[in-house]
Amino acid sequence: MNIRFYNARILTMEEGKKVFEGELWVKKEKIIFVGTKEEAGKYFETHASEMLVWDEEIDCNKNLLMPTFKNAHTHSAMTLMRSRADDLPLNDWLNKQIFPVEAKMTGEDIYYLTKLAILEYVSGGMSACFDMYLTPYTVADACREAGFRCVQVSAINNFSQTPELVEEWFNNINGKDPFNSYIIGCHAEYTCSEELLLKLSDLIHKYKSPFFSHMSETKAEHDGCIERHGMTPVQYFDSLGMFDFGGGGYHLVWADDKDIEIMADKGLYAVSNPGSNTKLASGIAPISDFVKRGVPVALGTDGPASNNSLDMFKEMFLVTGLAKLRDMDASSVDAINVLKMATVNGAHAMGLKDCDILAEGKLADIVMIDMTQPEMHPINNIEKNLVYAGCKQDVKMTMIHGDIKYRDGIFNIGVSPDELYDRAEMIKARIDKELEQ
Amino acid sequence: MNIRFYNARILTMEEGKKVFEGELWVKKEKIIFVGTKEEAGKYFETHASEMLVWDEEIDCNKNLLMPTFKNAHTHSAMTLMRSRADDLPLNDWLNKQIFPVEAKMTGEDIYYLTKLAILEYVSGGMSACFDMYLTPYTVADACREAGFRCVQVSAINNFSQTPELVEEWFNNINGKDPFNSYIIGCHAEYTCSEELLLKLSDLIHKYKSPFFSHMSETKAEHDGCIERHGMTPVQYFDSLGMFDFGGGGYHLVWADDKDIEIMADKGLYAVSNPGSNTKLASGIAPISDFVKRGVPVALGTDGPASNNSLDMFKEMFLVTGLAKLRDMDASSVDAINVLKMATVNGAHAMGLKDCDILAEGKLADIVMIDMTQPEMHPINNIEKNLVYAGCKQDVKMTMIHGDIKYRDGIFNIGVSPDELYDRAEMIKARIDKELEQ
Repeated sequence: MNIRFYNARILTMEEGKKVFEGELWVKKEKIIFVGTKEEAGKYFETHASEMLVWDEEIDCNKNLLMPTFKNAHTHSAMTLMRSRADDLPLNDWLNKQIFPVEAKMTGEDIYYLTKLAILEYVSGGMSACFDMYLTPYTVADACREAGFRCVQVSAINNFSQTPELVEEWFNNINGKDPFNSYIIGCHAEYTCSEELLLKLSDLIHKYKSPFFSHMSETKAEHDGCIERHGMTPVQYFDSLGMFDFGGGGYHLVWADDKDIEIMADKGLYAVSNPGSNTKLASGIAPISDFVKRGVPVALGTDGPASNNSLDMFKEMFLVTGLAKLRDMDASSVDAINVLKMATVNGAHAMGLKDCDILAEGKLADIVMIDMTQPEMHPINNIEKNLVYAGCKQDVKMTMIHGDIKYRDGIFNIGVSPDELYDRAEMIKARIDKELEQ
Repeated sequence: MNIRFYNARILTMEEGKKVFEGELWVKKEKIIFVGTKEEAGKYFETHASEMLVWDEEIDCNKNLLMPTFKNAHTHSAMTLMRSRADDLPLNDWLNKQIFPVEAKMTGEDIYYLTKLAILEYVSGGMSACFDMYLTPYTVADACREAGFRCVQVSAINNFSQTPELVEEWFNNINGKDPFNSYIIGCHAEYTCSEELLLKLSDLIHKYKSPFFSHMSETKAEHDGCIERHGMTPVQYFDSLGMFDFGGGGYHLVWADDKDIEIMADKGLYAVSNPGSNTKLASGIAPISDFVKRGVPVALGTDGPASNNSLDMFKEMFLVTGLAKLRDMDASSVDAINVLKMATVNGAHAMGLKDCDILAEGKLADIVMIDMTQPEMHPINNIEKNLVYAGCKQDVKMTMIHGDIKYRDGIFNIGVSPDELYDRAEMIKARIDKELEQ
């Protein structure tokens, strides 16, 4: 499809570039022009012979086009456990509620439950997720069919998955379709033996893969690692050469100064999950310190059992709000930087270098923000207002890879919401029955 | 209008009552029946002669009916300053940005800007606000015309308003229409002389009015009061007899054990504003302590310049999430209690005793929650899911006093959103010009 968006406000997220009024043209999966109406006219004159026939011309009515949000840490298929077990101490929640259900989930369950998450992603303006879960092939199937980008990371630990499987997934998922990729990682330091991590380190060096893992999510995990290895998780992984080709960590709530120094030196990404860290009482990550030391911060929702929504607007408000509370300083972590975390930094953390900003030659991953919603008015500072007052209701359209996946409340991911809701209820009923036996 | 809602899920918010499937009937401004389909059939048989002609019968398609949210602390007309000045230290924000603009605002400005806030309130499922601002008559006009409930509280301080004006407003606003009422209060301890507060105390005793004010919002304010009076704000106001007819405080971030004891003993309400307290780095209120000591907590958004949205879903997530972080305990402040804060407790704090739950004889202030949104699935625990995963997008309809004010994105408050957006821009342009001179 070739689509012309005109009469739009546009926020390209190029460094330092403000919102302007203009046009954006999409040819198949790519952006071929972004600029003012005047620039569009000139472009047309000089490129008249190559001009496209538009499949659709969309009057944006001054609504805002901007890059999609990137969900840089999640476990999509945990939709099943959303609001199943809340307000519990962390250990009870994980051991008594989450693990027993996960033990009963099949690859097919995960396929449908991932698609359920994708509904929520696209209705909230997201085009990509950085997913860690149990059955990489069925997750990849779900994302490819839905036309949603997914970077998977190994969930390997002492109890599930093997280095051989990780290598197989790495080779069979990367480079096979435009939507899926795979990065080597592990669940967490406290669930992996050193022997296992050294095998992963070999794979990392063989394939030159970045490495990601849960790190320092809770104080107990962080302190436990120091007890076990005399080092924090970041330092321990670094000592095993896991970061030799980049990567980063999820959560990093308890990262210390030395961790941040290592991350800055190696160009690692700190993926923060403030919604989950809040609901599970894990703590407040040192976001200001990451920012001051030049560690790029990306944002993730974490899984829907620990959040319980998959909503980047919630994460954007929280990441700066919690930093302000932690620092007791209302000027901490400027909202403009937060918008970058949710878009550009997320894309870069996930290795999606062509989906970061709106510019000629980039992939067409575009959100249209509904400027007719009351929380958008008056128009003082659109960028900051998205962070402080924006919500999922303000997403009017989500385009991924040149296809409109969500528009005015209607989904277009190849399967109806009702079918996915029914599937989720059937899976729930089956697993509940199995657990009773 | 007489309206029958059928095929609905219903959450009445009566203590201990779970979600059930059934019908809800509205006659003019009141609820005349709530119950299961079977109960509706029996009711019809025994009341056949009095049966209504329905103006509309609404198939709810299993969407959820519940009581509206009550915004128990706000400054609605501060919509003007939304996202005008963020990421600033508190004093710079207030003194250099907010106060100069407020000094230029007219009663007519406030009338339009309050209506702008009402758009956001009704699209987020709210039916009432507890408003403190500058021109009570024009605020009351805006709310009456929009059909939105507003309890105003005096903003009096040493620099604006007088006890005589407060008494005039009290007499001229209370009892005049079904939407507006007025409670005696003041801006804050630190902006009021003891002489002024004693005059207000006389009014409180003359009219048997509850008393509300900002209290212990920031540590500086809380500590300053102890320095000035040897007592915290709650204790100081109490020593002047301000709470002899009930009431409570806004914020109370720094309330201490003795404050909480006084509040419990006197049946006072703690109105928490977690969004504002987060963004302005004021701190985290001791919500668990209020709950444990039996002080009812209500929720407010505070003004849109300090939040920057007017969204009860945001406040619900934050009030329990921040309590969990403060207590380092994921089981702190159960979500069921949070839903009560946002509905029943808010209504009671504001003196709106007929708008608290869905029951026969109560006023018809009703939200319909869209259960077809992805974040509502699977259906594990609807009540907790509203708190942890709900968002403004899930509001399908808001009814106030028997009138549908918002439905499927369409507003019905007597003026178009576009007119209000244009008014806000004109007001902004005029004030900016005045400030330049």
